Amino acid sequence: MYPRSISNLIEAFKYFPGVGEKTAERMAFNVLGMDKVQTDFLANSINNVKEKIKRCEICNNFTESNICSICEDKLRNADFLCVVEDPKTVISIEKLGTFHGFYHVLNGLINNTNGINPEDIRLDKLIKRIEDGKFKEVIIAVKPCLEGEMTALYISNVLNGMNITVSRLASGIPMGADMEYIDPITLEKAFDNRKKISYNETTNS
Amino acid sequence: MYPRSISNLIEAFKYFPGVGEKTAERMAFNVLGMDKVQTDFLANSINNVKEKIKRCEICNNFTESNICSICEDKLRNADFLCVVEDPKTVISIEKLGTFHGFYHVLNGLINNTNGINPEDIRLDKLIKRIEDGKFKEVIIAVKPCLEGEMTALYISNVLNGMNITVSRLASGIPMGADMEYIDPITLEKAFDNRKKISYNETTNS
Repeated sequence: MYPRSISNLIEAFKYFPGVGEKTAERMAFNVLGMDKVQTDFLANSINNVKEKIKRCEICNNFTESNICSICEDKLRNADFLCVVEDPKTVISIEKLGTFHGFYHVLNGLINNTNGINPEDIRLDKLIKRIEDGKFKEVIIAVKPCLEGEMTALYISNVLNGMNITVSRLASGIPMGADMEYIDPITLEKAFDNRKKISYNETTNS
Repeated sequence: MYPRSISNLIEAFKYFPGVGEKTAERMAFNVLGMDKVQTDFLANSINNVKEKIKRCEICNNFTESNICSICEDKLRNADFLCVVEDPKTVISIEKLGTFHGFYHVLNGLINNTNGINPEDIRLDKLIKRIEDGKFKEVIIAVKPCLEGEMTALYISNVLNGMNITVSRLASGIPMGADMEYIDPITLEKAFDNRKKISYNETTNS
């Protein structure tokens, strides 16, 4: 019904997760409304990202060189290694500007039901890096879920006895959340990990 | 913070209306997850659509040739001309499969506040086409709003005295709508245009 080039573009947009016929149509019409400079930039950016982006040889983060800019940064604190699930989390943590250590990006999480074992997410590479390095603390910053817990547990087990602190980001109720909508597991975790309120904190707040 | 090629792609995705930083980031990561065949197809489709798609010389619809496939179709009913606002409406009506006449795609609607006059949307081209043609009925299928009404009124005024029926798609309550959420103008229109229920209809329904 559409001219060939439009229907091709609609099909192409359906590669994006969650994009169905309607959204893909709308996006294709958006492209028709863009000027040539914009569509050139868009198409070139897609090609470039696929051609140039590879994984950092040290930390597995996205990079255009062999070693990413964070791993190459001599000013970072070599005492801390933050283990994340994907490159997006690196960006989120970097945006905070409070963590100055290094990162290690996994290729996913251990998942027994889906048959994803430690070797599938190359945990051996992480372990080797820690063994070779001088990190004092490994902070596991993967999402709090069954797979996250299993991955964290596996890493801390392997590192057991290596004189390295292995820590995990705190689980609990997110700031600004409505208590009514907190799921029971989060609520239970928040109870278990409750913190004593010190006199100073209460007077400061 | 991102490698150059990723941040470029994020910027490029922001060309789409309603796409902000977060969505653009997600889309860029989606692209990184696609294989080379998919990204090639996506980038080529964007380039192709911009290079190949032009407007039909007769009806102004999108086409890859000089004349679109609908205008070239000798089997269509030359008694009817359906005037629409954009090429998307042509697709919606074609999907119904019940209208077999021809189309004319405007480049928008008359809008006094934004200074869009009949000449800006090339209504002269439409009028000339109707004068030269043998249409018996011109069906105005632009959306029911102030601009739509003005455009419809203008066309019917110009065609007045030409022995051509000018009609407008019915306005009213959409099927399956919840009465509670119908806006007052639609409700008023639905009252004004109420239809007498014939005995046959009630017994059939």
